[in-house]
Amino acid sequence: MLRIEDVLNFLKEMVPNPFSHPLFIPSSTVSFYSHKTYSSLSITMASPVTPTPVLKDELDIVIPTIRNLDFLEMWRPFFQPYHLIIVQDGDPSKVIKVPEGFDYELYNRNDINRILGPKASCISFKDSACRCFGYMVSKKKYIFTIDDDCFVAKDPSGNDINALEQHIKNLLTPSTPFFFNTLYDPYREGTDFVRGYPFSLREGVPTAVSHGLWLNIPDYDAPTQLVKPRERNTRFVDAVLTIPKGTLFPMCGMNLAFDRELIGPAMYFGLMGDGQPIGRYDDMWAGWCMKVICDHLGLGVKTGLPYIWHSKASNPFVNLKKEYKGIYWQEELIPFFQAATLPKECTTVQSCYKELSKQVKAKLGKVDEYFIKLSDAMLTWIEAWDELNPSAQLPNGIAK
Amino acid sequence: MLRIEDVLNFLKEMVPNPFSHPLFIPSSTVSFYSHKTYSSLSITMASPVTPTPVLKDELDIVIPTIRNLDFLEMWRPFFQPYHLIIVQDGDPSKVIKVPEGFDYELYNRNDINRILGPKASCISFKDSACRCFGYMVSKKKYIFTIDDDCFVAKDPSGNDINALEQHIKNLLTPSTPFFFNTLYDPYREGTDFVRGYPFSLREGVPTAVSHGLWLNIPDYDAPTQLVKPRERNTRFVDAVLTIPKGTLFPMCGMNLAFDRELIGPAMYFGLMGDGQPIGRYDDMWAGWCMKVICDHLGLGVKTGLPYIWHSKASNPFVNLKKEYKGIYWQEELIPFFQAATLPKECTTVQSCYKELSKQVKAKLGKVDEYFIKLSDAMLTWIEAWDELNPSAQLPNGIAK
Repeated sequence: MLRIEDVLNFLKEMVPNPFSHPLFIPSSTVSFYSHKTYSSLSITMASPVTPTPVLKDELDIVIPTIRNLDFLEMWRPFFQPYHLIIVQDGDPSKVIKVPEGFDYELYNRNDINRILGPKASCISFKDSACRCFGYMVSKKKYIFTIDDDCFVAKDPSGNDINALEQHIKNLLTPSTPFFFNTLYDPYREGTDFVRGYPFSLREGVPTAVSHGLWLNIPDYDAPTQLVKPRERNTRFVDAVLTIPKGTLFPMCGMNLAFDRELIGPAMYFGLMGDGQPIGRYDDMWAGWCMKVICDHLGLGVKTGLPYIWHSKASNPFVNLKKEYKGIYWQEELIPFFQAATLPKECTTVQSCYKELSKQVKAKLGKVDEYFIKLSDAMLTWIEAWDELNPSAQLPNGIAK
Repeated sequence: MLRIEDVLNFLKEMVPNPFSHPLFIPSSTVSFYSHKTYSSLSITMASPVTPTPVLKDELDIVIPTIRNLDFLEMWRPFFQPYHLIIVQDGDPSKVIKVPEGFDYELYNRNDINRILGPKASCISFKDSACRCFGYMVSKKKYIFTIDDDCFVAKDPSGNDINALEQHIKNLLTPSTPFFFNTLYDPYREGTDFVRGYPFSLREGVPTAVSHGLWLNIPDYDAPTQLVKPRERNTRFVDAVLTIPKGTLFPMCGMNLAFDRELIGPAMYFGLMGDGQPIGRYDDMWAGWCMKVICDHLGLGVKTGLPYIWHSKASNPFVNLKKEYKGIYWQEELIPFFQAATLPKECTTVQSCYKELSKQVKAKLGKVDEYFIKLSDAMLTWIEAWDELNPSAQLPNGIAK
């Protein structure tokens, strides 16, 4: 017969500091899990008051656009407290109207050229890849980026989904890249690690990226759009999960948040659009580079909630033209990124990224000369990042 | 300006045989994807009639139990067409009552001893690990195994979930272990591969295992049960996904289906219960061994739907006693399985399993002498399997 003392001693032995262990958070009082290493917000864990994860002064919303930002009206209840960074693509003489009451700064191509000088060559033109300029000029810890054809989605109960709040929850709770939890994110309320999940891995790792999804128009490539023109995503999957270490995924830039301090310099959206042989691979490129670096540095990447409502499909014929080469190239890119390893000496995102750019030149330069140009642009991007962010070159983590 | 001819030529070039490509299945007419390599069922893909995935003569339901099987009443509409294999644990003189109308065979300990002779030592006693005897004596291609405290769950619309039908869908559609699809199982109706998913990987690989989940009582270990005695799983996550290659997970045996021909011999539930130093790690052990072998042979493992209703939590104090050593050991087991590699020459599940048993002895034998005994039992299991299944030793696949 097991005595209660034995159980308590056992638990004490297993978990030397119970208050640092997720098992010991009373689930009824904490709506999301936090930890001093994951956020600069100080949240008292045992507090009976549910904290509001606003991060109002620590997050910028980055929006690339070529049109008036009427779509912000629908987001007003959720976005108005935040600062917006609008990256105007295309003709800089066009005036973009932003609805009243939003706090924003706006950069057009002239601004980008003025701020970056010759280094502006690394920022794409006539492609939403230009959004990454916004990541670079932000001074905040967190970035949320969203496309201007994305609206507020509803959950199955018919309530408006506060996408930003869910991204913040995702970023402020750890990730679990080393072992899959079958009940998904173990830090969500009402769930935990299941039987057989090693206790040594239950502290998780800091989350660098939160990848949100889309109801209505799914993010399909041109061939799939052509073959299934009427397909709509109506399935609300109520889950957030960590993409395991060593696994790549297609990161979409439509509804994406990340910790700029942890991973910002890896969020380069490449050379796309005007004057480039390819488009619509900006976010994919960033996702593959970012994932290799997160895996190396022991950082987490989550996908799943929140959903936004993606209002309209882009033209599949135009898309096919943009994607054409990418469809072939990705067959070589994926094995390249799957095999990529970074040396232990690379302990900052910048040093990882520079090393990756070398490997891109050496190995993908053979696929097409475009990758030599891209590799150079990756270095230019890091130089520009460091110029604008002089104090942000500290080690982010150590590879597991 | 892109012409429609260019698009068609492009697609033709990309997809030489459109009818073998998932993109070309009209989603409105096919409720689940099939392929001759994934199932012996012949389903005409273009048929407007939705096929019913019954596999009535190709699937056995394996139930380990120590009590009367009243729980089958609730499953009658779903299970009655199938053959049951009941593995009676504990006192063989006890009579287990099976509700009228079910087609079953029942094995108690005396039967196991009689059928396996001295090799019966590899089958656990007084532990649900004994269920794997049922896998061995089955002559069917597919197995579904379920615990006798699991009932029919309801989906969010209040409809009864046919768990077996969902498992069959999971098993008859391919898996995607080499790259993560952010809209989850791309073969489900209403979804597909997203932009950036390499086309060369869209055919997928055969699915060997379908791991279902549990509403109500979650599958927690004893420490978590003790700390969160009132936690219930109420979140219905409407997703099926492939566990990526190289990623381990905690496989629970409560609600599990698999392709016996593809992976059966790896589904050994180890030595647990009576006379053994450990319990409640039977399914975990099978899951870790199975996943390493699936990764090697290029087979897929899915998790998610279907849910069953898990009615009652087992006693956490009793569980703690059973799990105690496992909680320590798993910290060594996980790195062992994460690092395990199998030689190319291992092209059958049997040869993979024998090689793994050698590695268990060599590397885990140092952790505890139990693993030496377990390693020997793994070999005994394979010998017994081959005796009862003399024709099932063909190569299953080639590692990617």
